[in-house]
Amino acid sequence: MSTASATFLVLDLTGTFAFALNGALTALRVTRVDIVGVVTLGMLTALGGGIVRDILLGALPPATFNDWRYLTVAAAGALVAFGFGRRLDRLATPVLLLDAAGLSLFAVSGALKGLQFGVGFGQAIILGTITAVGGGTLRDVLIREIPSVLTSGLYAIPALLGSLVVVSADRFGAVGLPAALVAAAFCFVVRMLGVRYDLNAPEPPDTKRRT
Amino acid sequence: MSTASATFLVLDLTGTFAFALNGALTALRVTRVDIVGVVTLGMLTALGGGIVRDILLGALPPATFNDWRYLTVAAAGALVAFGFGRRLDRLATPVLLLDAAGLSLFAVSGALKGLQFGVGFGQAIILGTITAVGGGTLRDVLIREIPSVLTSGLYAIPALLGSLVVVSADRFGAVGLPAALVAAAFCFVVRMLGVRYDLNAPEPPDTKRRT
Amino acid sequence: MSTASATFLVLDLTGTFAFALNGALTALRVTRVDIVGVVTLGMLTALGGGIVRDILLGALPPATFNDWRYLTVAAAGALVAFGFGRRLDRLATPVLLLDAAGLSLFAVSGALKGLQFGVGFGQAIILGTITAVGGGTLRDVLIREIPSVLTSGLYAIPALLGSLVVVSADRFGAVGLPAALVAAAFCFVVRMLGVRYDLNAPEPPDTKRRT
Repeated sequence: MSTASATFLVLDLTGTFAFALNGALTALRVTRVDIVGVVTLGMLTALGGGIVRDILLGALPPATFNDWRYLTVAAAGALVAFGFGRRLDRLATPVLLLDAAGLSLFAVSGALKGLQFGVGFGQAIILGTITAVGGGTLRDVLIREIPSVLTSGLYAIPALLGSLVVVSADRFGAVGLPAALVAAAFCFVVRMLGVRYDLNAPEPPDTKRRT
Repeated sequence: MSTASATFLVLDLTGTFAFALNGALTALRVTRVDIVGVVTLGMLTALGGGIVRDILLGALPPATFNDWRYLTVAAAGALVAFGFGRRLDRLATPVLLLDAAGLSLFAVSGALKGLQFGVGFGQAIILGTITAVGGGTLRDVLIREIPSVLTSGLYAIPALLGSLVVVSADRFGAVGLPAALVAAAFCFVVRMLGVRYDLNAPEPPDTKRRT
Repeated sequence: MSTASATFLVLDLTGTFAFALNGALTALRVTRVDIVGVVTLGMLTALGGGIVRDILLGALPPATFNDWRYLTVAAAGALVAFGFGRRLDRLATPVLLLDAAGLSLFAVSGALKGLQFGVGFGQAIILGTITAVGGGTLRDVLIREIPSVLTSGLYAIPALLGSLVVVSADRFGAVGLPAALVAAAFCFVVRMLGVRYDLNAPEPPDTKRRT
């Protein structure tokens, strides 16, 4: 394995752990679930986006499902959340940072995988975004929350921008790890600016009149 | 492209636009979503049924996902809903008619695609119905509504009848655009009669005793 | 068809009928649905787990979707629930037993199908569990319930144990119907002990402090 792909693997597994941990913590906060629920919801948050991407690409079985390292890391993240629960609340900031890192890496790797399978420019961007936000969306559906990605904050938009950057870089011939990391960094910065300044995606123009 | 397939493409894109518009309007009516939510839910309503059909057929990537015209038209329908919102309420009747047209076309084209991939008679009818009602069902799940198709009105039944007609026509050797349009017209008429006379699918026999 | 596979087919169809009946009864109990909803939800409960498994394996179209016997038996189970409704409540015990039998058979057949498609040890166990509990989970999402499998009782765990037993047996060279029936019996016994003694999967350690 080259250093570049080893670097990417470590980053991707870190993102997977963060997504599983954060996904399981969200489930614990919102509803009452047992160990089956916590592990299922944590793993679904971490792996669900990539699984939906691979279903749409027809790349089956899905890559992360087939790789025991991803399954193990995702299960571990969920079990840490199960064991420590609310005591992890004081780690809110590192968890938020790791989650933003996961979002960025998943967007970029998802968009690149789309290109690799020969889909078009716009489709690769959509697949990157789905990879990044799909798992959390599935978790929210299972715990009967309206997916937060549809309602407020900046979560899908940084993922979309990161995907756009890496797909554009690819079109202009800038390939490989550097372009991927720049795109991921861009997504990460937009996401953290969104958190810091409490930015939201535009709302329907007549929202106020309606409420 | 032949005139027949050009006709069909135009009809299919019109149905896609109507579904995206109507799906996005439903989302705006029921819950509070931002632009990401409106576009996602509109596109999912328009393309979700066909995507589920293509996943079940193993015809991946899904046809409409791979075709930028469908993605663009679906996004446009959702953005019109986002921009105009409630002001479109006065267009309720044309939107309803377009939605019934979309239902009819999607049922017929979904059933025909099933036959083309060699599935059985009953399976083709199920696939037609899923193509027609699947997108709205997925949207309802995401906005935490019990899918209206499961509870009342005549929505799945016209789609099922339209699929049945076109699959039967195919079995009796009547293929091509005329048979498809007759089947779609039949679905359309049943749907509009349902709306006009407020018809419902049968309810469980002991419903009254239970409530 | 050999006696072994004929035996298995009869058992599997019995499980399908039980899942459809039980799934439709759950839908009738929880919410107000018409005949379209009852049949859809019953069929989804019975066939949904196997469909998700086959999508993950890329074995498309899904086996049970392609086999009219499964579709017919699932529709029949749902229609019996629609026709008799609450009057079936007095049959709660046989329905519970049949449902546990379905759980056991689906777990074992799902895990074996995974192995047949060459997935790893852990993946086969996950696929068995998904086959057993996936349909009920999809039904719960559609009727806007938090899937009970995530919150309480012993439902996923017996399925996981049954899958574990059959996958281990396969690894040690014990193949065929006997190993499958032992694994299914093990799942069945754990499930019924769980029901009898009202056992639950472990809950998060700080659950009490949180409520």
